[in-house]
Amino acid sequence: MLGIQEIASYIPSGRSSNYAKKELFEIDDAFIEDKIGVKQVAVKDSQEDTSDLCVKAFNKLQQKTGLNTSDVECVIVVTQNPDTNIPHTSAIIHGQLGLPEQCACFDISLGCSGFVYGLSIIQSLMESNSFTKGLLFTADPYSKIINANDKNTALLFGDAATVTLISNNPVLITGKFNMGTIGKDNKELICNNNELSMNGRAIFNFAARYVPADIKALLEKNNKQMEDIDVFIFHQGSKYIVDTLTKRLNLPKDKVPFDIMNYGNTVSSSIPIIIEQKLQDKSYTNIVISGFGVGLSWASTILTRLN
Amino acid sequence: MLGIQEIASYIPSGRSSNYAKKELFEIDDAFIEDKIGVKQVAVKDSQEDTSDLCVKAFNKLQQKTGLNTSDVECVIVVTQNPDTNIPHTSAIIHGQLGLPEQCACFDISLGCSGFVYGLSIIQSLMESNSFTKGLLFTADPYSKIINANDKNTALLFGDAATVTLISNNPVLITGKFNMGTIGKDNKELICNNNELSMNGRAIFNFAARYVPADIKALLEKNNKQMEDIDVFIFHQGSKYIVDTLTKRLNLPKDKVPFDIMNYGNTVSSSIPIIIEQKLQDKSYTNIVISGFGVGLSWASTILTRLN
Repeated sequence: MLGIQEIASYIPSGRSSNYAKKELFEIDDAFIEDKIGVKQVAVKDSQEDTSDLCVKAFNKLQQKTGLNTSDVECVIVVTQNPDTNIPHTSAIIHGQLGLPEQCACFDISLGCSGFVYGLSIIQSLMESNSFTKGLLFTADPYSKIINANDKNTALLFGDAATVTLISNNPVLITGKFNMGTIGKDNKELICNNNELSMNGRAIFNFAARYVPADIKALLEKNNKQMEDIDVFIFHQGSKYIVDTLTKRLNLPKDKVPFDIMNYGNTVSSSIPIIIEQKLQDKSYTNIVISGFGVGLSWASTILTRLN
Repeated sequence: MLGIQEIASYIPSGRSSNYAKKELFEIDDAFIEDKIGVKQVAVKDSQEDTSDLCVKAFNKLQQKTGLNTSDVECVIVVTQNPDTNIPHTSAIIHGQLGLPEQCACFDISLGCSGFVYGLSIIQSLMESNSFTKGLLFTADPYSKIINANDKNTALLFGDAATVTLISNNPVLITGKFNMGTIGKDNKELICNNNELSMNGRAIFNFAARYVPADIKALLEKNNKQMEDIDVFIFHQGSKYIVDTLTKRLNLPKDKVPFDIMNYGNTVSSSIPIIIEQKLQDKSYTNIVISGFGVGLSWASTILTRLN
């Protein structure tokens, strides 16, 4: 049985403080701390590219697990900010890590729902091809496409990468998945001419409306009750959206982590960064994860602890 | 059991003649007809974007099958030339076609190996999520990134899109897959600053060396003999590479289609365009398909006719 064996994340040490932007954007401490919940965003070095962030996450994974690169049978990179569009970033990483020739590599273009989708995609592919070790990377450094004068994006998004080792020796296994799309609203979060543009209110309204219903449907699909779930890890879009989902689902606050105060919304990396923290904590048996954003798109599943 | 039910392709009517480029590139008719085997390349209208090509392919699929859009449960677009990097092109297509909200959509970044990879990815995903109808698009209009003065690319690549309906009512089913990567050579085919650059000799050498061994390994993996295969559909990189593979594998010429004289190398669309022609021809029982290129990357499988 395949599942999550280990996760490692890399958050660059560079930071851009939102307190320094108070005058520019006419915002106060309450907006920074209580509304968006992001005091500073992580910013990669200008020399670091997407593949470099992934390689740094991989180095940490290797320290944790002693993984032998010759055992890796597939690599998927979830990104919408690849090093280049041709070739795919997974091939660049394949070369940098010296992975075996018999290794399937491709990128997936998805945003904040990408990690959850990616889990379903990589596990399905591995299952049907009898692979036992695969790497799911997330890395979407929005600093490459953010206009520092755009209040809707400059205060929110931080750079990071994660890598999840999927193997036949899992700590967490996935339940059934929900996946959906509202393509007609795709222009609410878009990158044109290398500049990100987001209609924050539209994205908020989408998540506030769709995610609670999706979580209820997910639980039913997996024959679980709300009380069976030990922690709900929502995509860390902002404090406001996580608080709103908590309220609308009547969840106890201590079951809903919010963790991005010091590095920002890291797109598809936000969920695995938090799972990594809970991975060895055996008090968490059932974990709901739910990603939503670019597309518009959403995906959710339940992770269950095996050991 | 899931497999290929139908395929439709869209090749734009615009053409750019290679005979008109003889002086510029100092080439003769023999080079055009016998070496690259491309007399003219298909060029999309400048107003058409990648999603538009896909929608036109879909319209043809719908004419052939009467497919109800409300039955589509997932959409994958294989492309390295998306409309934009954010959002994914599959979401744009989802909106244009008015597909259901409960529909999984994402793009895959792969080049000439992308259709074969895509078959494994979409079928695995559908199987594990109990989907019965999914769409696999290929569309990589290189005219967006080709420098008209670059002899290595301007004579070869044509624009096209295809869509493959994967369903539980298949005509062809897939066997086991081979998938591989040589990431260290990724710079041999790359797009920088919106301009494609290809080391044609390196790509040729890669394919000529790796593909024959891969086909032999594929047959063994699927318990087939060379003689069991009715047709070998190689990625249509150029006449020279297809001829070379034919020779190195000692294949009868009439088992190896070459079809791109009048539209060019359409990247991930080259294989499904040819499968579409063979789909209703019951003399083709076992079909090897093999894609190779950007990454460097390759993938192969055997399609077997069910009815």
